[in-house]
Amino acid sequence: MDFKLEKKDINSKARAGTITTAHGEIKTPIFMPVGTAGTVKGVHQHEIKDDIKAQIILGNTYHLYLRPKLDILKSAGGLHKFINWDKPILTDSGGYQVYSLSGRRKIKEEGATFSSHIDGSKHLFTPEYVMDIQRTIGADIIMAFDECTPYPCDYKYAKNSMHMTHRWLKRCCERFDSTEPLYGYDQTLFPIVQGSTYKDLRKQSAEKIASFEREGNAIGGLSVGEPDDEMYEMCEVVTNILPEDKPRYLMGVGTPINLLENIALGIDMFDCVMPTRNARNGMLFTSQGTINIKNKKWENDLSPIDPDGTSYVDSFYSKAYLRHLIISKEILGAQIATIHNLAFYLWLVTEAREQILAGTFYDWKAKMVKQLGQKL
Amino acid sequence: MDFKLEKKDINSKARAGTITTAHGEIKTPIFMPVGTAGTVKGVHQHEIKDDIKAQIILGNTYHLYLRPKLDILKSAGGLHKFINWDKPILTDSGGYQVYSLSGRRKIKEEGATFSSHIDGSKHLFTPEYVMDIQRTIGADIIMAFDECTPYPCDYKYAKNSMHMTHRWLKRCCERFDSTEPLYGYDQTLFPIVQGSTYKDLRKQSAEKIASFEREGNAIGGLSVGEPDDEMYEMCEVVTNILPEDKPRYLMGVGTPINLLENIALGIDMFDCVMPTRNARNGMLFTSQGTINIKNKKWENDLSPIDPDGTSYVDSFYSKAYLRHLIISKEILGAQIATIHNLAFYLWLVTEAREQILAGTFYDWKAKMVKQLGQKL
Ligand SMILES: [Zn+2]
Ligand SMILES: [Zn+2]
Repeated sequence: MDFKLEKKDINSKARAGTITTAHGEIKTPIFMPVGTAGTVKGVHQHEIKDDIKAQIILGNTYHLYLRPKLDILKSAGGLHKFINWDKPILTDSGGYQVYSLSGRRKIKEEGATFSSHIDGSKHLFTPEYVMDIQRTIGADIIMAFDECTPYPCDYKYAKNSMHMTHRWLKRCCERFDSTEPLYGYDQTLFPIVQGSTYKDLRKQSAEKIASFEREGNAIGGLSVGEPDDEMYEMCEVVTNILPEDKPRYLMGVGTPINLLENIALGIDMFDCVMPTRNARNGMLFTSQGTINIKNKKWENDLSPIDPDGTSYVDSFYSKAYLRHLIISKEILGAQIATIHNLAFYLWLVTEAREQILAGTFYDWKAKMVKQLGQKL
Repeated sequence: MDFKLEKKDINSKARAGTITTAHGEIKTPIFMPVGTAGTVKGVHQHEIKDDIKAQIILGNTYHLYLRPKLDILKSAGGLHKFINWDKPILTDSGGYQVYSLSGRRKIKEEGATFSSHIDGSKHLFTPEYVMDIQRTIGADIIMAFDECTPYPCDYKYAKNSMHMTHRWLKRCCERFDSTEPLYGYDQTLFPIVQGSTYKDLRKQSAEKIASFEREGNAIGGLSVGEPDDEMYEMCEVVTNILPEDKPRYLMGVGTPINLLENIALGIDMFDCVMPTRNARNGMLFTSQGTINIKNKKWENDLSPIDPDGTSYVDSFYSKAYLRHLIISKEILGAQIATIHNLAFYLWLVTEAREQILAGTFYDWKAKMVKQLGQKL
């Protein structure tokens, strides 16, 4: 993997860059649609590419490990070939999913034991095994195994957990660096900064993570319920420390406003289920604010879904029709809303990049944040 | 509406023709994908046109009447505009849906009262009102309001019901002929032959229905549980009577084999939820037989879904991937399987037409029926 920093904003820490992977380039800042189990729910692969214009998608190690399972991914030649997607893929480490299985998992120094949400079967993820799994999935960018702490989290727990994440990282790196990719192309490992909402821990963790000198770095344990301001504070502390010449990935974030504010703090990569999950529930993000398409006010609105939208669904289908589909729980409603939301997220980061390159990011962001906060 | 009979098979009663509507031509024999509530579940409108190559789709009066409701369809300028589909549409009359609401409906001479499956609200469909509703929906071809009898059905009930359907037809025709289309293009009304599985009733009904001299005729009350042979027998009796110079529509039929056998009996139009409903459950129809993609045997089969398939999904996605999606209840699984099945149904009727035109239908049908009956 290679990262080229192309431009730094003068009024903020925002940056524009290019990541190059074995499966092509990623222009940053970028948003990565979440393809949990090897599919972005409700969207065909060619739609992800042509209509949404995604440059990289995310897969979930936990889900793919349980289904379709590793032997199938291996015989397919990795996730890219299994799902027929030839652009970059990033996989998370399963740390967040395991953390979400409260009551069904136990975290020890060795690793995390958990029972499957599908059939209750018991499994153990160790840092080493999670590296092996991600070698088998074959994503271009893979993530270290970490513990994602909840919010709120008491200081002592957060501190101990952070140190364990650091020890796990060492084990991840040792395993990763002593193994080869399975399918003939390079993979790279990103470590994850933890430390809950404690500035001193975040600082410590960022310094530790930076010291591993991997090709890119991630920030985890945010967007787990804390107020936005705390998220931005933590992000600010961490991006002041993480090296400038490597991409920074803020995991699981967030709303369109969250994206812009964190881009201003020097984040290059994002992923979040919000645009896809909310789409299925009828919530649309647009440049003018959010729309709850289930509201009665759209019942007879035959205007296009989003006149400013970049995807064909925005002009092809009307608000009234989309409302009818979502209210009727028709699959096509989820399909349309998902394409709309993801295309909007991709437009937003692409436009942010253009504004950074043009030196106009700061004012544009201020204007957009106001618009994006409106309810239509 | 216009129907041109282009070719009659010499070894069977199969025919090839062209129906011309205000929204374009339909080459027969044809299969009409079911778009119950203004959407073919899981399929975008451009996919219905470009990937499935449907020439006409079907809407359900009962469902559209309940949701999005008539006022919205009217202000949109009809169903075509509401869903943005500019090719022909046929609507059923709601008779079949009301019949399916057993325990929630009551059929009297005046019409059928029923309570909505959505909110329990009470409604009355009379033959006249059903004409008005279908004027408002604005389909190119609309259906008479009939009673669909169950299988088995005792002779007396079937006979009385048939006569009521005939009386209802008179009321339908009177209302239809004394009203104008709402959106500036012509609509046409097809009457429906009933008579359960009794040859004498079917004969009587076909003669009665023919005497109304509408532009096309339909056969209802079949594919409700009777053995295939009884369906074919009834169809044979009826197509011997219905005029040759008008299209014949066999409602709610059926499997690929049913289509070919009924084409051989002189049927021109079909609709059925089978290709779409079964797709969502992982059952695929192919020219070599049926596939239950949930079966373990496909788990590691990385070959294309259907090497003979005409749609891009057939070669783009593998059996193992589709199986993974269906097993995981992922929306994309339903999307892929639905496009596959409908594209196959459209291929089948298009190929039947080619064979009829080439004078080779009879032998081709015999070969196909064997293949289609296989389980892969
Ligand atoms: Zn530490
Ligand atoms: Zn009669």
